[in-house]
Amino acid sequence: MAAEETGILQEAYPMKEGEDREMATEETGILQEAYPMKGGDGHYSYAKNSTHQRKATDFAKELIKAAIAEKLDKEILLCSKTFRIADLGCSVGPNSFFAVQNIVEAVESKYQHCQGLNSQIPDFQVFFSDHTANDFNLLFTSLPNDRRYYAAGVPGSFHGRLFPKDSLHFVHSSYAVHWLSGVPMEVVNKKSRAWNKGRIHYSSSGDEVFLAYKAQFDKDIEQFLQARAQEIVYGGLMALIVPGIPNGTHHSQNGSSMNFELLGSCLMDLARKGMVSEEKVDSFNIPTYQLSPQELEGAVERNGCFSIEEMEDLHVPVPSHSGEYKINGQVAASHLRAVMEGIIKQHFDEKILDVLFDCYRKKFDEIDFSIFKSGKVNNFFFLLKRKATNQATG
Amino acid sequence: MAAEETGILQEAYPMKEGEDREMATEETGILQEAYPMKGGDGHYSYAKNSTHQRKATDFAKELIKAAIAEKLDKEILLCSKTFRIADLGCSVGPNSFFAVQNIVEAVESKYQHCQGLNSQIPDFQVFFSDHTANDFNLLFTSLPNDRRYYAAGVPGSFHGRLFPKDSLHFVHSSYAVHWLSGVPMEVVNKKSRAWNKGRIHYSSSGDEVFLAYKAQFDKDIEQFLQARAQEIVYGGLMALIVPGIPNGTHHSQNGSSMNFELLGSCLMDLARKGMVSEEKVDSFNIPTYQLSPQELEGAVERNGCFSIEEMEDLHVPVPSHSGEYKINGQVAASHLRAVMEGIIKQHFDEKILDVLFDCYRKKFDEIDFSIFKSGKVNNFFFLLKRKATNQATG
Repeated sequence: MAAEETGILQEAYPMKEGEDREMATEETGILQEAYPMKGGDGHYSYAKNSTHQRKATDFAKELIKAAIAEKLDKEILLCSKTFRIADLGCSVGPNSFFAVQNIVEAVESKYQHCQGLNSQIPDFQVFFSDHTANDFNLLFTSLPNDRRYYAAGVPGSFHGRLFPKDSLHFVHSSYAVHWLSGVPMEVVNKKSRAWNKGRIHYSSSGDEVFLAYKAQFDKDIEQFLQARAQEIVYGGLMALIVPGIPNGTHHSQNGSSMNFELLGSCLMDLARKGMVSEEKVDSFNIPTYQLSPQELEGAVERNGCFSIEEMEDLHVPVPSHSGEYKINGQVAASHLRAVMEGIIKQHFDEKILDVLFDCYRKKFDEIDFSIFKSGKVNNFFFLLKRKATNQATG
Repeated sequence: MAAEETGILQEAYPMKEGEDREMATEETGILQEAYPMKGGDGHYSYAKNSTHQRKATDFAKELIKAAIAEKLDKEILLCSKTFRIADLGCSVGPNSFFAVQNIVEAVESKYQHCQGLNSQIPDFQVFFSDHTANDFNLLFTSLPNDRRYYAAGVPGSFHGRLFPKDSLHFVHSSYAVHWLSGVPMEVVNKKSRAWNKGRIHYSSSGDEVFLAYKAQFDKDIEQFLQARAQEIVYGGLMALIVPGIPNGTHHSQNGSSMNFELLGSCLMDLARKGMVSEEKVDSFNIPTYQLSPQELEGAVERNGCFSIEEMEDLHVPVPSHSGEYKINGQVAASHLRAVMEGIIKQHFDEKILDVLFDCYRKKFDEIDFSIFKSGKVNNFFFLLKRKATNQATG
């Protein structure tokens, strides 16, 4: 049945990622791939190596509670028979379950303390969403036994539609929207001025490379906000926890990017040893972008459907040799591997993983965390609220 | 937070299956396990060995179309911004995708042909549900590219709640509700008169064994209907495709059960050869029950929340040597293995699978399909409609 016959725009419906990718390559000029966090629960799994991401979720906990208490309209609660929550970029679970429980408890508490609402606590339905390649089997078997909600898994890219129109009341996304939909094509094109030869991110690259990444982020965040504007009910909230950099920071001072470049230098070491081809390293780039608050503000303004209700630096402690958040090469390597193993396996051979991360571990210890001393690594909390129609179109 | 504090009855929320199982064992007197169909897409996978189940879905296709055209109230369509469909017992997909597409197209068609509705076609959200142990990763990567709905996976047992209250408009379940929540405890209890020694189903057993199975089915279908009555909106429909037997058929004439007993005789052969212990065979029973239409009628009546709008024998052709639906030992063994491999692996050793199904293949060819000549094997289609409150409680 064709779109004309049903009156439904087929474009609004999600596509399988394979198809997405093809279209993206031809029409949008990016190389789109899905890079799930490492599944399973082994030594290098994301489940066991996401304590930094968990820390940011911890820091955001009270902000989310307060947001629900103060910014969630009573009208939404009054007319919702089911309160629907989505976590976008949930991975295999542990941090996601923690975040979702906090949201459910805060909404329950609001119902209990709002006059005229306390007898009407609705059912909660929680959608755990991530790329189709995510390990949903592990996610489902890990669901907390004592959960107070109906759980569902939703596969697909959050750069497109994932949910029916006006169906979500609260969207949460932690450590996810900094992932681009793919590597900008220019940075792997030998003929382009943005060709990123010998590097895998942009902190030590020229402006052209950085601007190609930035253009991709602007396009991706636009698509992300467009999709969510359709899916979130008027007055609904969206909490985003995003690694980024302060306004006005030059890309050479981007701490996360500097960290990736350390891994890139190891890949170049492997190329010199003949373990991988230099060309293979040249064509490898990590598709993440560390935004500044101003950039998100700009995107939200251009989109027009959301107001920014809050914007905070979470001040997650910077890793150091001692103190609350200790780190060393071993820990840093395990964390980075949990996030990057998938994308590296996809491009190189699985065999290089041990050597590569061992090199990273050594270099990390040698430089004595100087990346985290000189570079900027921030974790931002943004609370967005879906405006009502007249505001959105006005 | 305790149930008292939140005002939510925690019992209404789904539990992880592990917990379910424990509770079931202690409180309900059954051995509860989850037996997913064989995952993956290999030689013995359910994906490649479910043509019989697909045939029943094919036969039900027109009945479902007609049901939606004639029995789905216009009021439901008028007030639904999202039309929500659930397929319960979806396994890894192919048949489920086919059934769901048929439902979506039939609802779209109804919108187009109902005056005052044609400009209001809603978004469709489809929940694919099966046990937590189901291979959802394969299900998600197999989702049709051209689907016209938002897809979600829901893990858990359909003998309990899976969805928020009043959230589903159409429930579909094919070849699933004949699976019991577990083996009735009496049939594996040496001290019980219902001990099913040396057999794995009930066609050749005494009445005590059959009645233990029947009691379990009655309890399970009661829980199934109770849960769905909560989840389906007033006026919503539920289509059940269920293998069964005609009213008044003695359990010794149950063709499906006779087929299982053929497999059971192979297990006893293996016991005689010392490949498995006889005790292990004694404690193994297949937790399925082939209902009669009268039994479903009785359960629906006791539940009180649904009306039976239709009840038909699908007249799926009986397998024979020639004709439209050819079958031989090899095909029958592959089909049975796709459904039973999980449950057999769980109880015995994986190593017996090849020998066991080879024995079944040989015996199947030797008896020249006499099971399907003398035994009753029917496929029923039931259409249930959720009554409005006053009717349900009246």
